[in-house]
Amino acid sequence: MSVDDSKKALVLFSGGLDSTTTLAYALSKSYNVIALTINYKQRHCYEIEASKKIISKYSNVKHIIFDIDLTKIGGSALTDSCIEVPNKSKNGIPITYVPARNTIFLSIASSYAEKYRIRNIFIGVNAVDYSGYPDCRSEFINAYENMINLGTKAGSEGQTFKIHTPLILLSKSEIIAMGSKLNVNYSDTVSCYSLNDKGEACGQCDSCYFRRQGFIDAGIDDPTIYKNKSKI
Amino acid sequence: MSVDDSKKALVLFSGGLDSTTTLAYALSKSYNVIALTINYKQRHCYEIEASKKIISKYSNVKHIIFDIDLTKIGGSALTDSCIEVPNKSKNGIPITYVPARNTIFLSIASSYAEKYRIRNIFIGVNAVDYSGYPDCRSEFINAYENMINLGTKAGSEGQTFKIHTPLILLSKSEIIAMGSKLNVNYSDTVSCYSLNDKGEACGQCDSCYFRRQGFIDAGIDDPTIYKNKSKI
Repeated sequence: MSVDDSKKALVLFSGGLDSTTTLAYALSKSYNVIALTINYKQRHCYEIEASKKIISKYSNVKHIIFDIDLTKIGGSALTDSCIEVPNKSKNGIPITYVPARNTIFLSIASSYAEKYRIRNIFIGVNAVDYSGYPDCRSEFINAYENMINLGTKAGSEGQTFKIHTPLILLSKSEIIAMGSKLNVNYSDTVSCYSLNDKGEACGQCDSCYFRRQGFIDAGIDDPTIYKNKSKI
Repeated sequence: MSVDDSKKALVLFSGGLDSTTTLAYALSKSYNVIALTINYKQRHCYEIEASKKIISKYSNVKHIIFDIDLTKIGGSALTDSCIEVPNKSKNGIPITYVPARNTIFLSIASSYAEKYRIRNIFIGVNAVDYSGYPDCRSEFINAYENMINLGTKAGSEGQTFKIHTPLILLSKSEIIAMGSKLNVNYSDTVSCYSLNDKGEACGQCDSCYFRRQGFIDAGIDDPTIYKNKSKI
């Protein structure tokens, strides 16, 4: 592996707050970055437009959008239009969990990484202020890294993949503070699962809840435009 | 989990010799089977037609075809039309290896399995008479099983997934002998990476080589139609 290969990175990039911070972090560590956005026909498809807008401002980042229609599988409020997105969940893993989503995303990322001789894969999972998704935990990421190094030509020939999770132990406010220092423009990022046609966030879903609380706790102005701020 | 759930199985099914034998094996063990075929826009796309033909003869099997365009990623003779399928490979992992393919396939299978409350996933990988693909080995399968049980709601709630690999330690001739006892009609299955328009196998690629030798070693008539049998 050449020195150049060791400084190449693939960042899983949704256009949301966490992955945009992860992208900025990877760039701050001098990686040559490919951003991979998975268009899985998610309910919040404006994520794709947000991802394009954000990447257009980084002239040094190549953007790949890969399509996979997870509505064919369904089983989640994000991939089945018959299941409503709930307001802030109380207990357990919420209905916005998409079956095996991060495994699917990481496997596609790994395939691209192997093709382009990239050993560093970044994913903005976070195990603190999150919704209880099992595929956002360190145990899962460590097991994935072990598995992919056994299941690929690159890995089995000793060119080890590393899954980087710079946000995994940070609170949402710490993520926002980190991104702000890295000059992330959070007004371009979207988090809401139910954004309306005007681009206004619902302020009620899990994702809005954690985002909004994060800005409050970080003491940073929240640039998000909410549908009905007085009701939040 | 109900008793019924424990007897449900999802079989990754390509329409080839190995996965058709795996399907017959799962049915012989009284599983209620969903066969999942991944149409990854592979060069040998007649696999999809073969898979439909085979499943049409099993009235008790539901067939799902899931599309994912791996030619967008490329990096293999099977997914990049600019890379030629070689004749029988000599050393190392051949160019027909598709980056992270079995990880991608298993992750899609796991997503469906979680949606349908299926705990048993069958895959016809084989570590004996194979082409050296790293994602056909027990080490990989065991690591995948560990990972998916950490990365899914079902797994993290104790409804453990099991990845079944009934062929993994069998030679090709033993697979053919097993399938013949289970009344598999191998004339419907396709293995060749370069089948021509008339449905004739090339007889030269890795996949033809292992298949042909398997029938010879098993002492069973090979129903495959080869393009130019005299040259093999």
